[in-house]
Formats: sequence, C-alpha cells, structure tokens
Amino acid sequence: MRAVDLIQKKKEGKKHTKEEIFFLVDGYTKGEIEDYQMSAWLMAVCFSNLDEEETAWMTEAFVKSGEVLDFSHISNFVADKHSTGGVGDKVTIALIPILASLGVTCAKLSGRGLGYTGGTVDKLESIPNFRCEMSKDEFLKQIKEINAAISSQSPNLTPADGKIYSLRDVTATVDNMALICASVVSKKIASGANSIVLDVKYGSGAFIKTKEDAKKLAELMIKTGALLNRKISAIISSMEQPLGTHIGNSLEIIESIEFLKGNYQKDLWEVILEIVAKTLISGDFCKTKEEAEEKIKEVIKNGKALEMFEKIISYQGGNKDVINDYSLFGRAKNVYEIKAQKDGYIKELDALKIARACKLLGAGRDKKTDKIDYLAGCILKHKIASKVNKGDVIIELYYNDVKEEKLKEAVNSALEAIKISENPVVEPQLIYDI
Amino acid sequence: MRAVDLIQKKKEGKKHTKEEIFFLVDGYTKGEIEDYQMSAWLMAVCFSNLDEEETAWMTEAFVKSGEVLDFSHISNFVADKHSTGGVGDKVTIALIPILASLGVTCAKLSGRGLGYTGGTVDKLESIPNFRCEMSKDEFLKQIKEINAAISSQSPNLTPADGKIYSLRDVTATVDNMALICASVVSKKIASGANSIVLDVKYGSGAFIKTKEDAKKLAELMIKTGALLNRKISAIISSMEQPLGTHIGNSLEIIESIEFLKGNYQKDLWEVILEIVAKTLISGDFCKTKEEAEEKIKEVIKNGKALEMFEKIISYQGGNKDVINDYSLFGRAKNVYEIKAQKDGYIKELDALKIARACKLLGAGRDKKTDKIDYLAGCILKHKIASKVNKGDVIIELYYNDVKEEKLKEAVNSALEAIKISENPVVEPQLIYDI
Repeated sequence: MRAVDLIQKKKEGKKHTKEEIFFLVDGYTKGEIEDYQMSAWLMAVCFSNLDEEETAWMTEAFVKSGEVLDFSHISNFVADKHSTGGVGDKVTIALIPILASLGVTCAKLSGRGLGYTGGTVDKLESIPNFRCEMSKDEFLKQIKEINAAISSQSPNLTPADGKIYSLRDVTATVDNMALICASVVSKKIASGANSIVLDVKYGSGAFIKTKEDAKKLAELMIKTGALLNRKISAIISSMEQPLGTHIGNSLEIIESIEFLKGNYQKDLWEVILEIVAKTLISGDFCKTKEEAEEKIKEVIKNGKALEMFEKIISYQGGNKDVINDYSLFGRAKNVYEIKAQKDGYIKELDALKIARACKLLGAGRDKKTDKIDYLAGCILKHKIASKVNKGDVIIELYYNDVKEEKLKEAVNSALEAIKISENPVVEPQLIYDI
Repeated sequence: MRAVDLIQKKKEGKKHTKEEIFFLVDGYTKGEIEDYQMSAWLMAVCFSNLDEEETAWMTEAFVKSGEVLDFSHISNFVADKHSTGGVGDKVTIALIPILASLGVTCAKLSGRGLGYTGGTVDKLESIPNFRCEMSKDEFLKQIKEINAAISSQSPNLTPADGKIYSLRDVTATVDNMALICASVVSKKIASGANSIVLDVKYGSGAFIKTKEDAKKLAELMIKTGALLNRKISAIISSMEQPLGTHIGNSLEIIESIEFLKGNYQKDLWEVILEIVAKTLISGDFCKTKEEAEEKIKEVIKNGKALEMFEKIISYQGGNKDVINDYSLFGRAKNVYEIKAQKDGYIKELDALKIARACKLLGAGRDKKTDKIDYLAGCILKHKIASKVNKGDVIIELYYNDVKEEKLKEAVNSALEAIKISENPVVEPQLIYDI
C-alpha cells in the first residue's frame, strides 16, 4: 500500500477499506506518512467525503492509536459531554459541578481553544493557579475522591487525532463532518465514558452553519458511536447569538459561578437542563426531564453544586475564593460601550462578529503559542428580542493594552453584529432537536 | 495574507488574485509556506480548479521564481517542443537532430521520468557516458557551436515549479490541467524559446485520457502562452497504443537511430513531421507541410540528421559508436515472447498496460532515487490493425534479473494489453487536431 495511491483513490471519490484507513492513520501517527500526504488526503476527504463505515473506521483507528481510559473500578456509570463549540459556551463549567453533586461520576477531558475564544481549559486557567495538566493517576484519584475532574487532554489518548487535528487546523480541512465526527467521538470513547451527550451547535458562531448540517453531524456521531458500541445522544442547539451574556475567559467563569448561585440566563439554563436530564435519565438517576429539573434546582438552592465547583477548583490548585470575590481574577483596564443606534428590538446579535471582536481584544489565539488575555471579552447587556432605546448600552467590551487599529476593528465588528428592527422580534428557538 | 486562508478560499471555489498566487508560489519556494499547506492547496485546486487568469499568474510566478535563458546573442529563432508524455514517445530524440541539421537552433531542456518509463534524459543516458547535466555555459556554448543541446533541467529555471512538481508527484495532484499547464509553459518560457510546439497526448498511456481534455489542455496552454506573450502551437495526438515499436530506454534510442537512418514507423513519422513542419513554418524556414516533408526526407537521405545526432552524442560525452553498433548499449539477458492467443486483427494494444509491464521489468522508477535498468523494455512486433495468427509473437519483453512474481505480473499486464478481433480493424487516427 502506498499513501499516494490512497490519496488518488479518495480524490476519485472511491471508498477506502478498513485496512486502508488504518494504514493512513497508523502510518501518519508513526511518521511513516508525511504531513504533506496526509494534508492532501484530508483535502480530498473534504471534497469526496467519508461514508459512515469509513468514518467509524477512522474513529476506531484514532481510539486504537493510544490509551483508552478505564473507570470500571471507580464507577459503572461515567458521564461525559461535548460541545462542537460556540461563542459564550460555558456549559461544561456549570454542568460538571451540577452532575457531580448529584452523584454522577464526571471524567471530563477538555481542550484549549484555537479560534475566537479560549477553550474550557483556557477558561478554567483564568482562575488563579488553576491547573488542568494532570497525570492520569491524579485524574483518576480526583474522580474517585470528589466525583469529578476536568483535565486538559492527555497526549496518550488518541494521539493520531491530536496529530491530524493540528494539521487540519493549518490546512483549512477542519470543517468536514466525517473528520469532525471521528475526532470528537474517538476522544469521547478513549476518555472511557459510558454515557456521552453531545451538544451540536449551528449558526453564525459555530463550525456548522445550518440546522440541517447540525442534524446530519449529530446523526453521524450517534451512528459512529453505535458502530463502536457506545451510547451517544445529542441535542442540536442554535448559536446565532452567543450563549448567555459573558464572552471571554474569566468573564465566562464568572457567569458560570453566577449560574451555580442561581442567577442564570434562560438560554444557558435550557441547554444545561437538557444535557443534565439526558445524562441522569441515561444513568437511571431519574425518569423524566421534570424530575431532572427538580434535582438541578435543589443542588443550586442548597449550594451543593457551587460547593462541588469549589472542591474542583481547590483540588486542581486554584484559588477557590474567586467564587465570592471576582476581583481576584483581575480586571480589564478598559471598557468600551457599544450603544444602540436607534430605538427598537434587537433582531440580530451575530455570534461570529462578537467573537471576532473578543479575539481582536485578546480573548483568543491564532497559534498554539499565542498568549490569551484572560480578562478580555465582552458582556451582552441585551439579547435578541430585547427592546432597546437609542443610546442604551448593548455590549460592553473589556480589554487591556490593545492597539488603536485593533480596537477600532473590534468595535466595528461588535457594531456590525447588532441589527435592530422597528417591529417586535420573537425570541429565537434555542434547542432545535433532541 | 495567511496560507490557511488562501487554502480555504480555493476550497470554497473562489478565484485568487494575482497577489495571492504569487504569495503562495513565492512563499512556498522560499520555505515560508509549508509542504503540507501547499499540498492541501494543490488538492483544493484539483477539485476547484484555476481559471485562465489564475493559470497564467501561476505560470508567471513560476517563471519569475528563477532564471530566464536568453539566446538572443546566438539566434533570433530558437525552437522548443514538449510532449505531455506517452509510452514509447521518443519524438524529441529524433526530432532535435533533424531540426538542428536544417539550421534551426534547438535548446532542449528535458526531464527525467517518474512513472512507467524513463524521460528523455534517462533514455539519452542509456548511451554509454552520455551526460545531460550541463552548466548553463556548456549548454549555450554547445548550441552556438552545433545548433543543438539536450540538457537535464537546470535548477535555476522555474525552481518554484520544480519544488511544487516534486510535491504533486507524491500527493496525487499531478493530473490537474491548470497545474500541468503552468508547469509545462513556465519551463518552456524560462528556457528562452521563441517557438514552442506542444504535443498533447491523450489515451490510456497518457496523463490525459480523452481527446476533449487534450484539446482543453492544448487550448489552455496556447492561451497561457498568449497571455505571457509567447507563441505556442500544439498538436493533439493519440496514445491509445505506444508510439513506434520500441519501449524502454536504450530500446527507444535504437528506434530513434533507425528513424534517422530512414527506417521508421508510420506513426512516429507522422508526429515528427507535424512538429517539424510547424516549427519550420513558424521560423519561416518553409511555407508548407509538403516543403517540410521534403526537407526532412533530404536530411535523412543525405545523412545530415544522423550526423547531427552523432555530434550531439559526442559533444555530450557519449559514445557515438552506438549509432552503428547497438551491442554497445549492452543486451538484456532475457526475452519473453507474448504471443497471439488466436487468429485475427489486433484491436487494442493498451499503452498503459504495456508501460506497466515495462516498469515492472525495471524500465521506470517510483522514486527519484530508484535505479533504472536501461536495457529493460519491450518491442512491439505488431501494432493495432495488424493481422496475426495464433502463436505469432506480438510483444517481446526484455529484462535482466527480475523477481519471479514481478515477471509474472509484467507478462499478465502485457497479455491484458492485447485484444484481438475476428474482424478487420481500421488503423486508428493518430493526430486528432492541430
């Protein structure tokens, strides 16, 4: 077998055998196939696609390229969730403490962000001294002791995906469904969870732009899970406007803490409720969504969820006092207020444009080596359907030392994100399908 | 500008600006853009294509990446020809001595072969001690003194194409028309010729499989030449069966010598006549194809063409005695006869399958570092439309030490190449368009 022939085959739109997929993935991981061959193949896949079987084989090859975590000695029900990524998506941060405080074992492996804002790991690391780099033993020990840990991905899990993902990122081959599916599902399988809930987001602020594509991706991931004997469920949610009100690393931690204190935005609540309910029902912790809702409200009311987050922070070396003193995060030096240009109802609050503004202010990174400004970001004072008067502040931009022209660009992007209509606007549907 | 954004742009099927094409080509040549990004872009081009303008810009960027030869002090009419490559294509080897003996300045830069059989350079190097590696000064001096030189490509000409071609070769991105066009035309422009005749081949043994595609490629190359102020003409010829009778490196030199001695196959004659005529007319050496034919016949008859080949061989260090003593090439140890399985007329003599057989016997290379067996190859004892009886030898395979299973594969490929019909077969049209 030669890589160049397999590239040609995929270029011609033909289907690979299982052996061919393994040859490519293993060969590349071992360095026997060159970057430039893999990237040509990945681009061919973007045009010719992989079918369901090929996707499952690729996923399996990723899983088998590294270690597979095993929690059977700790719990026979381990939950995991994954979001395909969106703007202001701090679901994991509030969700894990809730699930763990309800007795669900949560083994969460998260990534750093490349793109507009940081990933879950970056957000958590905005808590002074919080540490996501954990050894496998530390990770298992913490899960055993407090039911939850959030770790940056171990290089021993799905190394093939790690290497291929880095390549996709710099070769414009990220946005193919089969490749996204294999990457996500393999990581979840290798992480050892029994129950996996996926949050597939669509809209301007997500990888996937349309409902239909989000549905396709969700179905593909569920099927891939099934072909590899894992139970995966999914919700499909909108990312037309950012989730919640806070975007940026420490700002999203603050919103998550507020959530656990019972002060939440309706949209964030809806998504978290849906995922918690799916997880609890799948683990026989309850029977209905209503029951799940009761349970969440209880652990928020009695402070157990917040206490759990405090424990996670402490265990992972962070300063738990941030929970009651947000000034410990530090504070961005400057605030710029984006105001309504006329009276009316907010019709659009484009997630991508807002994310771009945040990135320009320092909240995201282009390269792995770029530094993130944890304090940079924005707070939305209004969301879609909100009535505003001319001059009302809609977005507050937070930033430190940003060059004049970058600030200008960020302000323009934020201004462009907003559309105001004279007529009342219906609140958009957040969750499209389950 | 970032390479990843340009890859994405082409992936989305959008048109590049001239600046973007130059950014990619120059950046890659200088090593600022990585192999894996260029290969992803090349694959995107294979699917999304380049339009005529983009192709011309790419060609221009290739030309400008290196030196451009200038023969104005030697001659104001310098001819060049290029074949898109085919099986048994020894046109250059017989053509250059003919043109040069007719007073046309021939500055020929040729490549080594990757694929089924060697390139012109490999074929010439089968002549003992023949040397194609020449400095620019040696090349110019020889042209000045004897009107012709055949050199392997100088690394100073179109280095961008050289680097990109190597990458295309291992990433299954060779067969895109815009990329082929930019590669061929840039080399011809940088070689400094005023008159360029292209032989665009189609059929099983060529890159291009159909007449229609060959015509498209020829038109694209002529247009690209025009956009860059060079006069390019083209013939479109069939490569359904090999050209001439001999395939393999020294075997093709022998057939070329026989040609210059006046013993030629009709098909080889037709192609050479067409190209010589186009060149002579374009350089005002004659007015009609009939006149050109007269002239060729004359230099073959009076021995001037053969004498010119002798001179070229001598100047380039080779042993000119091969012209009268083919045993100086050496001789393959073994001959295997492929015989007609039944009485009838040869209907098919698949060029690709015959080429595969030759390669398996050692006539071609996979990697630049592979060694070629100059003596390996085959001789066709019959061609399409020929009447054969069961048991007649159709192909003689020549080889040295070849592993049992490779020989078996080669024999099978040669057998599969032949189709015999009970009914008489019309001789196929060789030259489709001019």
